[in-house]
Amino acid sequence: MTTTAIDYQTEPPRYRHWRLAFDGDVAYLIMDVDQAGGMGDYELKLNSYDLGVDIELNDAVQRLRFEHPEVRAVVIQSGKDNVFCAGANIRMLGKSTHQQKVNFCKFTNETRLAIEDASENSKQTYICAVNGNAAGGGYELALAADYIMLVDDRRSTVALPETPLLAVLPGTGGLTRVTDKRKVRRDRADVFCSVEEGVRGAKAVEWRLVDEVVPNSKWKDTVAARAHEIAARSDRPKDAKGIKLNAIQRKIDTDRVTYSHVEVEIDRTRGLATVTVRGPSEDVPASVEAAHELGDRFWPLTVARELEDAILHLRSNEREIGVILFRTDGNAQAVLAHDKFLAKANGDWLMREIRHYLKRVLKRVDVTAKSFIALIEPGSCFAGTLAELAFAADRSLMLIGTREGDNRKAAAITLGQANFGFYPMGNGLTRLQTRFLGEPELLDTLKGKIGEAIEGEDAAELGLVTMSYEDFDWDDELRVMLEERTSFSPDAMTGMEANLRFAGPETMETKIFGRLTAWQNWIFQRPNAIGEQGALKLYGSGVSPTFVKERV
Amino acid sequence: MTTTAIDYQTEPPRYRHWRLAFDGDVAYLIMDVDQAGGMGDYELKLNSYDLGVDIELNDAVQRLRFEHPEVRAVVIQSGKDNVFCAGANIRMLGKSTHQQKVNFCKFTNETRLAIEDASENSKQTYICAVNGNAAGGGYELALAADYIMLVDDRRSTVALPETPLLAVLPGTGGLTRVTDKRKVRRDRADVFCSVEEGVRGAKAVEWRLVDEVVPNSKWKDTVAARAHEIAARSDRPKDAKGIKLNAIQRKIDTDRVTYSHVEVEIDRTRGLATVTVRGPSEDVPASVEAAHELGDRFWPLTVARELEDAILHLRSNEREIGVILFRTDGNAQAVLAHDKFLAKANGDWLMREIRHYLKRVLKRVDVTAKSFIALIEPGSCFAGTLAELAFAADRSLMLIGTREGDNRKAAAITLGQANFGFYPMGNGLTRLQTRFLGEPELLDTLKGKIGEAIEGEDAAELGLVTMSYEDFDWDDELRVMLEERTSFSPDAMTGMEANLRFAGPETMETKIFGRLTAWQNWIFQRPNAIGEQGALKLYGSGVSPTFVKERV
Repeated sequence: MTTTAIDYQTEPPRYRHWRLAFDGDVAYLIMDVDQAGGMGDYELKLNSYDLGVDIELNDAVQRLRFEHPEVRAVVIQSGKDNVFCAGANIRMLGKSTHQQKVNFCKFTNETRLAIEDASENSKQTYICAVNGNAAGGGYELALAADYIMLVDDRRSTVALPETPLLAVLPGTGGLTRVTDKRKVRRDRADVFCSVEEGVRGAKAVEWRLVDEVVPNSKWKDTVAARAHEIAARSDRPKDAKGIKLNAIQRKIDTDRVTYSHVEVEIDRTRGLATVTVRGPSEDVPASVEAAHELGDRFWPLTVARELEDAILHLRSNEREIGVILFRTDGNAQAVLAHDKFLAKANGDWLMREIRHYLKRVLKRVDVTAKSFIALIEPGSCFAGTLAELAFAADRSLMLIGTREGDNRKAAAITLGQANFGFYPMGNGLTRLQTRFLGEPELLDTLKGKIGEAIEGEDAAELGLVTMSYEDFDWDDELRVMLEERTSFSPDAMTGMEANLRFAGPETMETKIFGRLTAWQNWIFQRPNAIGEQGALKLYGSGVSPTFVKERV
Repeated sequence: MTTTAIDYQTEPPRYRHWRLAFDGDVAYLIMDVDQAGGMGDYELKLNSYDLGVDIELNDAVQRLRFEHPEVRAVVIQSGKDNVFCAGANIRMLGKSTHQQKVNFCKFTNETRLAIEDASENSKQTYICAVNGNAAGGGYELALAADYIMLVDDRRSTVALPETPLLAVLPGTGGLTRVTDKRKVRRDRADVFCSVEEGVRGAKAVEWRLVDEVVPNSKWKDTVAARAHEIAARSDRPKDAKGIKLNAIQRKIDTDRVTYSHVEVEIDRTRGLATVTVRGPSEDVPASVEAAHELGDRFWPLTVARELEDAILHLRSNEREIGVILFRTDGNAQAVLAHDKFLAKANGDWLMREIRHYLKRVLKRVDVTAKSFIALIEPGSCFAGTLAELAFAADRSLMLIGTREGDNRKAAAITLGQANFGFYPMGNGLTRLQTRFLGEPELLDTLKGKIGEAIEGEDAAELGLVTMSYEDFDWDDELRVMLEERTSFSPDAMTGMEANLRFAGPETMETKIFGRLTAWQNWIFQRPNAIGEQGALKLYGSGVSPTFVKERV
């Protein structure tokens, strides 16, 4: 896999692997991978994919929600004959470093969850029309859809052959979705995950692996009919007009990435990056129509896009950065005014999309393997939506009052209604609910303080920040903390954070990022998969792998 | 760590590390580790422990439930001055293989969960009286108790220093219990898990890490008072008389372990073991008193003890055995009669203990990293409690009808009330509920069939078995399946099974064995922990570890 910087931004005219087609309220998202279009030295045969293919898929899923509100059902299908998708490209996996494999799986998992989020929360429902073999990641892509159709041509199957073929797990939520979404009986799941050739026809329905099999002769018509039926059930507005997601404003320098409202400063010597998010520079729009008019220049949407790109960039391209500092800069009341605007206009499809998008961006923070520390200083605007950055952080530090020689407003956290339900985490709870799992009564107290600037020791006493320091202690305390944090084993930090961030209930989503991902990461280090005699290394070479037989 | 066979059987006269003392309805379980009593070439300083120490603890917890029903509260404390427990011995971990570390953590996790099970289900409530530093596994032991007291001597702390000191996670449920049992705020948990020196005094209470701090001068009296208060709340019978858990009947040969009602045959060439469980050889006792009289010869208790030992033996001492076949032999109605007896006498403390014990043994199967395949053949007794072995297995195969030349009863599964609530899994559901997560209505149908011998194709149709084969296909089908299963990567199987076995809700218990354990196992392979420059290798050498800085 390439080591040049990975860019998560793209747009349909640049797609090499996907096509979009529209038929009224139904969109067709057609996978037609360009064999020569991989990011590294391998061929993307049989509609297999690498990160580049998934970056386009992620972009398409995102644009369908914002640019095509008229779409009520999305059909994913293959543009190739006889193959739906062969899953993640094995040569790519074989050549990837551990970090690349893990980050690849994380991003593809997020994309699958974004598909489910669109079905559930935008009623832009995904259907997967499996026209050809769907193996591994190919079937996992289908599993992300709400409805799976399989062509009955006596040949096409769905399969999760990773375990028998490659000695790894299906890495994109497959096992969890088989047991918890499709609710396949565990012994059948065991058989299914052990047979290379997969399952087809009526048995695939009986085993709950797909929802419907359709004879070849009726395939096209039945897929279209099903898509229109499902589209008809959607509550989406009939007359909505999409907004354009223009290229984000971004300038990448050696130690800095500059967006319009987000700035990333990178200090590689210390292993630190600082992400500063700026509050709104303009008043809330006069009306919902005016907000639509602003389109991607509407502050909450701008910030969501820029923050997302910054996080993805740091994950992939700044691998030795272990700690990210969150800073904000601006007017707290202006942030709250935007939140209020979003809440009031929640019946509007675009405002709803923006909230769900912000939710997804914050979830990306939750599963990012970096330590996050929020620095709440004079002039900052940790309010409402932006206060979630402090609650998503592993720790937050607040400066008590103001700084000498600095006449900006005292450091404060300002709660808003956004903190009480806009942005549930993967565990289904808000960040404040998760934070105060042991003191749920505190949530009512905090609700009573919506709109108040909660400063210094008050914020610490209410449990909203981890520590608060006077100006004269601030620099030293911060320096010591950061030196300590960056001296710890990066792996131990990753494991610790993955456990401490998700108190309370587990969901399919937290299972995927917790149990499943952790086991996969474990296997991704084992000689039986990645050693010279391992299955991932030897796949396609004609030589069979040799396994260490010990059971761990 | 030693590579001689590990024996999980012990008894108080042989304890080297624990003492039991009794004060009416309160027992004191005193940790006083014999520095020279480790299982390998290391010294167990500062009440640190290895597997041998935990085998004794497990035995003590077990015996308190069976031999001391008069005990209503158990106080765990240290027999040493100034130290409660320094956790798992670091030299031991440094010298252990990956498999040994993983298995060690699994067993200690099971012991901590057994402590919680005693508090919850036997109202034999555990209190931890932390008289000295409790670090790492020492504090994790405390976390297993329902009530934690800490002496306030201005010195004693609770701490989870694994991450900063050793670059690994607290491996015995610490992170999960901090967030989900103690409900410590996530940012405080983050701080707590990063400070080597831990937290003491009032702050430990404020942070919810302990329930009470007590000045040194009042320590002994307060601990005793609290123990008697907690004991007074128990619903345990006043006049109960314990039964003796005698040494189990066991003969270990090269390829065979023979118990009174369990037999283990080991085929190392094929990587297989067969565990045969024999049904009751005698009628149910005439009365509950008669069952007490039988004591550990009462069939359900005998089988629980023998099966548990067999599973633990196979885990630790037959590491290259990847597949375990479950067979049963006996009379299905006799098994059901014993289940009925247990259910009817459920108000009796001993019968209740036996059911909970069987539950725990079956849970050990659920988290064992071996493939389990149940073979349901003529003459078998997969009924009620023993049918759970088939439902705990990854697959079950049933022979249709009888065998040529074999006049034993046709192969069947016979459901009993035990299958509908006696033995919840770690996820809180019964094995049938988990199995039929997608078809819950089937559970009512199945309840209607309690007591019926469900044979061959009927069992397959009802979803109770994975496959059913005629006699003439049986041997070939089985051979092919086993050849295939044992040819797969053992690691991939472990990961796959850990994901497929636990559909449905997650609990603290499943989080510990899922998310937490998997991340720990991942870290246990990383050079930052175990490499030549890793923290676990270099601990105590005076040389600081060198970490690969990449964040994964």
